[in-house]
Amino acid sequence: MQRIANLLAIKDGQVLLLQKPRRGWYVAPGGKMESGESIYEAAVREFKEETNGTPLHTHLKGVYTMVIKENEETVDEWMLYTFVATDVEGELFKETREGTLAWHPIEKLKHLPMAEGDRTNLLFAAAQSGIQYGTFEYTKDFELLHEKIQMSNE
Amino acid sequence: MQRIANLLAIKDGQVLLLQKPRRGWYVAPGGKMESGESIYEAAVREFKEETNGTPLHTHLKGVYTMVIKENEETVDEWMLYTFVATDVEGELFKETREGTLAWHPIEKLKHLPMAEGDRTNLLFAAAQSGIQYGTFEYTKDFELLHEKIQMSNE
Repeated sequence: MQRIANLLAIKDGQVLLLQKPRRGWYVAPGGKMESGESIYEAAVREFKEETNGTPLHTHLKGVYTMVIKENEETVDEWMLYTFVATDVEGELFKETREGTLAWHPIEKLKHLPMAEGDRTNLLFAAAQSGIQYGTFEYTKDFELLHEKIQMSNE
Repeated sequence: MQRIANLLAIKDGQVLLLQKPRRGWYVAPGGKMESGESIYEAAVREFKEETNGTPLHTHLKGVYTMVIKENEETVDEWMLYTFVATDVEGELFKETREGTLAWHPIEKLKHLPMAEGDRTNLLFAAAQSGIQYGTFEYTKDFELLHEKIQMSNE
């Protein structure tokens, strides 16, 4: 089962998003965990690789079960770990093989094109306290079929 | 890849532990996530099944990458999600197929027989703020070979 870690950097009311070339959708920088990594190490490594920046005060905000359904059957399932960082050091890439990297006002998360589950996930990460959990069910084309959310605070 | 969720209930300076019959080792109640569950749902369901109690104020405290090594090769790898709850409702089982369930003073976590990574994990969950991440490497006989830990606070 795949494990994906991503990281939303937040600074001065803005979030750092990568616009992917294929659909033009926005995502938080991230990627696949490697064998033996912790989720924290994976999130930091992937962020560095995709942005050239070093995240500061990295903290987990969400753990999601991602499910792809086809004819009501589960055809794929993976885990998504979403972190935030409250600052970034270093000179960031602008354009990479992965897409276009830029800062956007937090409020734009409500409207920029992205997977609908990512919107739920990133809005929580950027603006609320505690940790969010849940399951997102998608079609193969990433149309959101169903989301079920829980959250908790220390 | 297996995903395991467990839950340490804490109340009046005591923690609820299950003593497993085979080795006599102590664990927090928990078990395998089912397809499509969130980690939160899995932790609560497994706790209810193993204790007959309902956990209150359930919150994530740790996410660990668990690795079994044999001759320096990884032969198994899974994810462990550790939650705490600050109270439990309902009449708890005492003795089940899974083992013996009882409350123990938090300090006993330092000395009770258990996997050494579980000790690191449960001591953090019971007594520290924030979230802990890391990788635990074990032999097939659950002798701890290596642990690498990170932690963060909101």
